[in-house]
Amino acid sequence: MTDTDTVTKVEDAQIAALELAQTTNEQRSEALRSLADALDDNRSAILEANARDVDEAETMLEQGEYSQVLVDRLKLDDDKIDTIIEMVRSVADQDDPLGETLEARKLDDGLELYKVSVPIGVVGSVFESRPDALVQIASLSLKSGNAAILKGGSEALHSNRVLYDIIREATADLVEGWVHLVEAHEAVDAVLEMDEAIDLLMPRGSTEFVRYIQDNTKIPVLGHTEGVCHVYVDVAADREMATDVAYDAKVQYPAVCNAAETLLVHEEIASEFLPAIAEEYEAAGVEMRGDERTRSILDVDEATQTDWQTEYGDLIISIKVVDSLPDAVDHVNSYGSKHTETIVTDNAENADVFMQGVDAASVFHNASTRFADGYRYGLGAEVGISTGKIHARGPVGLDGLTTDKYYLEGDGQRVASYAGPDATQFTHEPIEGDWDPGRLSDE
Amino acid sequence: MTDTDTVTKVEDAQIAALELAQTTNEQRSEALRSLADALDDNRSAILEANARDVDEAETMLEQGEYSQVLVDRLKLDDDKIDTIIEMVRSVADQDDPLGETLEARKLDDGLELYKVSVPIGVVGSVFESRPDALVQIASLSLKSGNAAILKGGSEALHSNRVLYDIIREATADLVEGWVHLVEAHEAVDAVLEMDEAIDLLMPRGSTEFVRYIQDNTKIPVLGHTEGVCHVYVDVAADREMATDVAYDAKVQYPAVCNAAETLLVHEEIASEFLPAIAEEYEAAGVEMRGDERTRSILDVDEATQTDWQTEYGDLIISIKVVDSLPDAVDHVNSYGSKHTETIVTDNAENADVFMQGVDAASVFHNASTRFADGYRYGLGAEVGISTGKIHARGPVGLDGLTTDKYYLEGDGQRVASYAGPDATQFTHEPIEGDWDPGRLSDE
Repeated sequence: MTDTDTVTKVEDAQIAALELAQTTNEQRSEALRSLADALDDNRSAILEANARDVDEAETMLEQGEYSQVLVDRLKLDDDKIDTIIEMVRSVADQDDPLGETLEARKLDDGLELYKVSVPIGVVGSVFESRPDALVQIASLSLKSGNAAILKGGSEALHSNRVLYDIIREATADLVEGWVHLVEAHEAVDAVLEMDEAIDLLMPRGSTEFVRYIQDNTKIPVLGHTEGVCHVYVDVAADREMATDVAYDAKVQYPAVCNAAETLLVHEEIASEFLPAIAEEYEAAGVEMRGDERTRSILDVDEATQTDWQTEYGDLIISIKVVDSLPDAVDHVNSYGSKHTETIVTDNAENADVFMQGVDAASVFHNASTRFADGYRYGLGAEVGISTGKIHARGPVGLDGLTTDKYYLEGDGQRVASYAGPDATQFTHEPIEGDWDPGRLSDE
Repeated sequence: MTDTDTVTKVEDAQIAALELAQTTNEQRSEALRSLADALDDNRSAILEANARDVDEAETMLEQGEYSQVLVDRLKLDDDKIDTIIEMVRSVADQDDPLGETLEARKLDDGLELYKVSVPIGVVGSVFESRPDALVQIASLSLKSGNAAILKGGSEALHSNRVLYDIIREATADLVEGWVHLVEAHEAVDAVLEMDEAIDLLMPRGSTEFVRYIQDNTKIPVLGHTEGVCHVYVDVAADREMATDVAYDAKVQYPAVCNAAETLLVHEEIASEFLPAIAEEYEAAGVEMRGDERTRSILDVDEATQTDWQTEYGDLIISIKVVDSLPDAVDHVNSYGSKHTETIVTDNAENADVFMQGVDAASVFHNASTRFADGYRYGLGAEVGISTGKIHARGPVGLDGLTTDKYYLEGDGQRVASYAGPDATQFTHEPIEGDWDPGRLSDE
């Protein structure tokens, strides 16, 4: 495969995107249900192709080229296929993200403006080993009416090919050419360079991987890099609640971006609180690293400057004693990654100061940072968590894959009538109704 | 000035942005009214500094370095200062773009989630000669709680300095350091490289200028490049209405991006419609260029492939006769810049096909393309027109300078309770009320 092939595929996707934008939610959901059925019908082909990938990966593992984690992520079994099928059906069942009237305004008599959600166009995704990422991105794209360019890792080559063929065939009755798989390594560069044709990238992989994508493309990237999240235990914290939150935020699932990496404790309660949480952390096997004042209370290693900015993704936590609430806010704004921050306090004013003062996608009061997640937030299908501030921030649902389109209905109006000394005035009255794509034809 | 100075200024703005995010709409609007008064009080200083810039520019004009257009844009007088002051007051009077509750959901008893609009952080702007751009960007940024880094053109050096000093002094009581002016030519590169610190760029200038900015930064750019807009006169068009719309879209103000560049005419009505519109265009001094079939009806020059993709920004229009509505849609999707497209037709189904099928920020039915504008759309202060699809599309109001922040109010919840075999279920019920920043403190 050459770059020319990738360009051809993307151009094909651009044309298909225009068709896809005109399908109904029912049609797209039906296509997704056909896909779920087709995945179920082709289990043996999927498992067979996956076994070839796993075999090759295990050879690479023996040669020290691949890690065990990679091999584990790559491997599919009937349970994992069940989960994938369930995910596809659940995306099919989501509310339609398209055609939502976001604003409606009468500019003047017989001149009505509607702002409506529409697909973005062509979405690209580059992802690492998990073959389920391919099916997930394709499903989210299809539901939101976007064409998709998919580039998987070479380690999942056979799995990806089979899954891609199933997706393409199961949805061909709706629109052809809306989804393309690109495989060659040089195709990644081709994809990253097509900022005129690809409207949004959704990378899936490690922090380093997402950062690499961000640093090497002009296409907007919807993705998250690291999460350096904090739990601040205020002077007015309920000790038991503080222990619960600090424990859950670190221990419940340390490998993810919304897990806490640093615990900040007000100096007035440090000598009472720290031994209590340390006992729990120790029992859970959490390694603690502290600043000087923490180490005067707990027998732990020293936390260096590097610790304050590190996402461990593991059972390690850095601990700092702060003089005051403003110091806690300052520390978070200096070292946090603007992902998710929580304060534990019974003092309402202190909670306000923290929540207003901290610049992060999610700020919590008396709750674990681990709640920052599209499913828990009730967003339905999670497109991703965005650590950027533009377009989408924090956990992102299907509306992150939409953009706006203004529809203006007139009866021959000219701007000249609304300009100059005898200008007609705009009325700008709100309209109650929604935009109905078939409204004109129904008249 | 060195790049280090620019970096220092941007860092200062980042700190000020955190303070600014905590001010109220009343405070920011009051600061804007102080600014309006200060501009009024300092007219002579502004005009004096501007006269120096104009003097120098006129010398450059004589030497053939500058154009007359540049000198005209640069020049301020009392009327223009009135307009600037009025603009600042009107921004002050706008509704608060911040603190709007966009979603509110009860995740479970005592666990309430609010998604609220907040400032983006630090906004950068690089602009060409008009000194009013400086005041406009600063006002929009302040109203929306964003710190601003401003880089004007060297031709407006003295005007910009005086205006910047007035802005800084008039708003210093609110927050210091929220606005900075950078001047050195190398500062542009420094600004464009600070994608970690500057959250959004709003360039102001020509298409080439905006494209240069887009091509040389990783910071998201809110701006518009060219507008290649079409008027399609359908077979079922009212002839008189079609003439009105096609005339207004080209002639009313040809220099702007929402003016039409190409007229598409259905072949069945071409021989009747084209002579009528040609008469009007000729009377207005519009140069017409046509395809073969147009030229069999009108005595005009040939339109080349280049014409279909050109934004003339002038009294020139390219004309093409199309076989069918789908051909018109195809032409628009192939050559349009996804800005604003209009169909003139009395056939409702044809209008639907065009409006759904064309991929553009604004699609109109029986109205001039010139209506695509924030003021006419009733958006209040216009931040810009975006030709991108991400973050904001089409005419953009103050909400284009906001992002989202999730606030979660709990009473000590742990994610562990919502996981595993005995997991508590999320309720995800809608909440009617809005997020109130002072709600906790008021209890």
